[in-house]
Amino acid sequence: MQAVNVSEKLARFTEYWAPKIVGEVNDCYVKLVKLESEFVWHQHEREDELFFVLNGVLRMCLRVNGRTREELVRAGEFIIVPHGTEHLPVADEEVHVMLFELKTTLNTGNVRDERTRAALDTI
Amino acid sequence: MQAVNVSEKLARFTEYWAPKIVGEVNDCYVKLVKLESEFVWHQHEREDELFFVLNGVLRMCLRVNGRTREELVRAGEFIIVPHGTEHLPVADEEVHVMLFELKTTLNTGNVRDERTRAALDTI
Repeated sequence: MQAVNVSEKLARFTEYWAPKIVGEVNDCYVKLVKLESEFVWHQHEREDELFFVLNGVLRMCLRVNGRTREELVRAGEFIIVPHGTEHLPVADEEVHVMLFELKTTLNTGNVRDERTRAALDTI
Repeated sequence: MQAVNVSEKLARFTEYWAPKIVGEVNDCYVKLVKLESEFVWHQHEREDELFFVLNGVLRMCLRVNGRTREELVRAGEFIIVPHGTEHLPVADEEVHVMLFELKTTLNTGNVRDERTRAALDTI
């Protein structure tokens, strides 16, 4: 039960798109992730995801009812992507994000590719 | 599915110790709360609580195995108080906190007093 300094944790890793676990709250994890460039369109069948932007601007592309739109999420803002919603996180420049999501959440959701991280480090 | 600006939401209320719901992620709420002075010793039987400090310094008093200690949580830091842990949040000066916790979490936990907020506003 100690205070966790988010900046200090962010300084511990450099890899992009590889979430690190920094906390556990009931059935959820708190994760930190660094983003750069474009991820992959995916969705989570059962899990909502919260993206709280710490640094930079996250461009979240969303596909709803067959239409694509995007939402800019700046530092100090968050967006919640409900389960079943196709989304594509894009970082035109480096972005740092704190995630709150169920422990079962896989970063690439329904997609499996070289960016899938099934086992996450706790830092 | 829109970006939520935390500062903008904080500007919408002034009352202390009255959490406001600003998001829903699976079985959890994201809440904002403003703190000033001392709360009440309490615990949550089943719910862990995450306190992410946005502004100010939260002094979290904790009672573990009969011994009391305190942890300072500064802006950009969080602390997770596990269920079953007696805690007393103290704000020597005004503190703004983002909470992440199960929807069932009552602010005063096992205590009922004039600060208990059973029904929370969504802002």
